[in-house]
Amino acid sequence: MKRGVLIVLSGPSGVGKGTVRKALFEEPDIDFQYSISMTTRQPRDGEVNGEDYFFVTREAFEQKIADGEMLEYAEYVGNYYGTPKSFIDDTLASGRDVLLEIEVQGALQVKEKMPEGAYIFLTPPDLRALKERLIMRGTEQLDVIDRRVHAATKEIQMMANYDYAVVNDEVSLAVQRIKDIIKVERLRVNRVLPEYIAMIEELEES
Amino acid sequence: MKRGVLIVLSGPSGVGKGTVRKALFEEPDIDFQYSISMTTRQPRDGEVNGEDYFFVTREAFEQKIADGEMLEYAEYVGNYYGTPKSFIDDTLASGRDVLLEIEVQGALQVKEKMPEGAYIFLTPPDLRALKERLIMRGTEQLDVIDRRVHAATKEIQMMANYDYAVVNDEVSLAVQRIKDIIKVERLRVNRVLPEYIAMIEELEES
Repeated sequence: MKRGVLIVLSGPSGVGKGTVRKALFEEPDIDFQYSISMTTRQPRDGEVNGEDYFFVTREAFEQKIADGEMLEYAEYVGNYYGTPKSFIDDTLASGRDVLLEIEVQGALQVKEKMPEGAYIFLTPPDLRALKERLIMRGTEQLDVIDRRVHAATKEIQMMANYDYAVVNDEVSLAVQRIKDIIKVERLRVNRVLPEYIAMIEELEES
Repeated sequence: MKRGVLIVLSGPSGVGKGTVRKALFEEPDIDFQYSISMTTRQPRDGEVNGEDYFFVTREAFEQKIADGEMLEYAEYVGNYYGTPKSFIDDTLASGRDVLLEIEVQGALQVKEKMPEGAYIFLTPPDLRALKERLIMRGTEQLDVIDRRVHAATKEIQMMANYDYAVVNDEVSLAVQRIKDIIKVERLRVNRVLPEYIAMIEELEES
């Protein structure tokens, strides 16, 4: 069984990660498993356990942390939120791809534990067009330009931890680029080599 | 100016590298520069210097070797054949992609000097279908099977030095996979990061 690919979609806040992720899942030829988060907060009306979240007790969550079973987690307004490793591991082992949409800090934590994933950094189109826009306008005050340059610099520093940079200039274009990335990730030698080696071992044993 | 991508197409002899390379260059949306080899042999009728080969003297070739200007070279029937670095470097610097079709030993030499290339290993469809075929037939003698398994094992060992494995089951499919690889290579962070950093530096200076 060929292992699925873990696709981690991340990027600065406000870049449109959620919109791109939803558009990806609407594509007819995509069959990802969405990585379901675990939380200790109460389910809201209509939320389904194992679909919207895995709802667990505080004790269960802390046990998961202690066992090294959380790829990443954070505490927010008194509740834990995190990504359980076993669900992703089992899904990948079954040959199905998993998409994890996550903010930058979480993505870096995940990468430490699952470096074999395809880490995609969604960039705002402004970053690329920033220079042109600032020069063209000619109206920005120096401190505004400085602040923008500073923000852009910080974004670039984050980007260095990823495998791919996808500009979110148009959602449909960003979706197509991500689909191309996934297609090509399946051709990477580090993904197909284990399959070939297993085949050879079987051949040699028979 | 965005730097071009060096695409190195290699694989075991007889896999169909030349056929796939020619089919790639016939694609309407492809604008590679083909890496032209240098040789000390005499031009044949109709061969054009700087098109089929760079034809040089033995002294000139050996000077290139001494200067570290050959990405790889070999001597064959008393003549040198090799890949000059400067031509590839200049073409990449001008923003144009370069395709180098080369056998496995040469590819490994090139990789040492230009690890930033996209190294594609073309695999014979047999490798993937080998097991099924051998079992299905049930007619092969043990030593034939052993020889095939040994050859397959050696091929897999070579593959580990590459970035991508492309099965040459059908030329048109192999060509499409290589086109996808090139498209996605342009999204890799290590390729776009220098561009972003240069932009930021310009912004900070202005």
